[in-house]
Amino acid sequence: MNRKIRVIDTTLRDGMHAVSHQFTPEDMAEIAQKLDEAGVDTIEVGHGDGLGGSSFQYGFAAASDREYIKAVSSVLKGAKLDVLLIPGIGTIEDLEVAAKYGAKVVRVATHVTEADVGEQHIKYAKKIGMEAIGFLMMSHMADVNKIVEQAKLFESYGADAIYVTDSAGALTPAGVAERIRAVKQAVKVPVGHHAHNNLGLAIGNTLAAIEAGADIVDGTCKGLGAGAGNAQIEVLIAVLDKLGYETGVDLYKIMDVADDIVAPKMKRPQVIDKDSLSIGYAGAYGSFLLHARRAAQKFGIDARDILIEMGRRKTVGGQEDMIIDVAYELSRRK
Amino acid sequence: MNRKIRVIDTTLRDGMHAVSHQFTPEDMAEIAQKLDEAGVDTIEVGHGDGLGGSSFQYGFAAASDREYIKAVSSVLKGAKLDVLLIPGIGTIEDLEVAAKYGAKVVRVATHVTEADVGEQHIKYAKKIGMEAIGFLMMSHMADVNKIVEQAKLFESYGADAIYVTDSAGALTPAGVAERIRAVKQAVKVPVGHHAHNNLGLAIGNTLAAIEAGADIVDGTCKGLGAGAGNAQIEVLIAVLDKLGYETGVDLYKIMDVADDIVAPKMKRPQVIDKDSLSIGYAGAYGSFLLHARRAAQKFGIDARDILIEMGRRKTVGGQEDMIIDVAYELSRRK
Repeated sequence: MNRKIRVIDTTLRDGMHAVSHQFTPEDMAEIAQKLDEAGVDTIEVGHGDGLGGSSFQYGFAAASDREYIKAVSSVLKGAKLDVLLIPGIGTIEDLEVAAKYGAKVVRVATHVTEADVGEQHIKYAKKIGMEAIGFLMMSHMADVNKIVEQAKLFESYGADAIYVTDSAGALTPAGVAERIRAVKQAVKVPVGHHAHNNLGLAIGNTLAAIEAGADIVDGTCKGLGAGAGNAQIEVLIAVLDKLGYETGVDLYKIMDVADDIVAPKMKRPQVIDKDSLSIGYAGAYGSFLLHARRAAQKFGIDARDILIEMGRRKTVGGQEDMIIDVAYELSRRK
Repeated sequence: MNRKIRVIDTTLRDGMHAVSHQFTPEDMAEIAQKLDEAGVDTIEVGHGDGLGGSSFQYGFAAASDREYIKAVSSVLKGAKLDVLLIPGIGTIEDLEVAAKYGAKVVRVATHVTEADVGEQHIKYAKKIGMEAIGFLMMSHMADVNKIVEQAKLFESYGADAIYVTDSAGALTPAGVAERIRAVKQAVKVPVGHHAHNNLGLAIGNTLAAIEAGADIVDGTCKGLGAGAGNAQIEVLIAVLDKLGYETGVDLYKIMDVADDIVAPKMKRPQVIDKDSLSIGYAGAYGSFLLHARRAAQKFGIDARDILIEMGRRKTVGGQEDMIIDVAYELSRRK
């Protein structure tokens, strides 16, 4: 029998970044229904930054978490409804509301070294009967030992699965395989991988993850997502199908959702440009881009040099104020 | 010392497919000059189907082979000018003209099982002092033993390098690695890989090729090319740079050529749609697409089923007339 791979579609969550969080509940219901019919196992919905993301800081979505979840849960027949929760952006209360309106799965997303901030969220989700997945972001920033330690923390809180997430699209296949293999050996629960396409490797890395033992992988229709986007789900299904993996997803149907339903709702095609490529190359936060560009102009240097230096210093989201210092230093070195 | 990888840019040849062969000699000169300044080793130019391609059958280019080669050779300082020759489309006479106006390298492209039709072209190129590369197309259609046999044929004619080409974008990393490894062991000359992105694996496969021993790889700015396009060269350079390979190409400069010079000249962004994905999944000829769509409509079936069946039967370019038979059979089976 062919090996089974669980596929989570995150067009309606990570893809929201690419449409400035402006899918309507009606858009989401239409797309989710077709994804469900295509046989997708789990469908993630909401603001790009997850529960509570709709805000002045992260951009307002076209509707509330409750409205999206309600709209999508009302059309799903087989697929599970999933939400993302980044502690600090979303709260336990947000999760309670999400569960009430139909979310069955939550991915608790923390920086790769900070699983502990997700402890209470995982425990609460388990208490109210949800599936809870620990989601380690920016995993290129930590070595294998650190990632294993953090994965075990999530497992100790009761997580049903652990994700190794390449938020910046900065990993290559060997780096993904090494991380997945180590986590897979260290925990008893299923292991997932979430790829980004900044280095053109979203499909290649996802395949490497599966070959290294990953049980769950992510994708989005047309690759819709932040920056260079995610693994293009219809392409991923074609590749997995061709290689004999069992995903439960109908290839023609998922191709049709992507091209006929999602594509017309996109603001622009999902391609790799020098901005998103620089982020992947530097291994830096996507949110640094705008700040780096401004600082580059001010100091007469190349924004890419700033991003690379920020990546080298392993700076994380929230450290945007360091960009000016880095730009100043780089301009002095010239 | 880091391992050296030779990079051939084929934006101005394979990329011509994506602009209906309408780059002007001025466009080509502008792009080639920037590619040269960025440090690209070899630049391939001409009609998408190579020398002699400009015709009623393959589409007329905006200018003649001679005009393109003249325009580009006049601006190159370091890069070598390369042309593609598909025997049957291009002739020895075309090659003579190309050499006269500045082509230094020719890739003689044949179906993966037909290297023998390229014998005279390789020998002629060597006689007039050109570098001659044997280019085995549709390599997913042959097993490793067949490919090795054909590679050795090319080597016996005097080819300076042998390419394993994934014309349909139908291979996955393991399939590429297996083919490259075998050819690398069998011949003494350098081995190359030319990828297509139909399965989202152009970068992943190119990396697999290099890890399996490939010495030369291809790419195009923004991934410009037939169908889903080629390996996006600026992304490829970023990945190789990151992994410590030496390409001689300046990353920022190649990013700038792609985004600032080539992108504005594109007719549409290079993405993977269900047509190109179906070609990669089926391992079928890109030229079958239009015929399959017409036949599908006539017989009330799905064009993708026709492509998959054509791929299964290992049909090759020129067998378009089989499409009607296949469509008829499939419609009867329903």
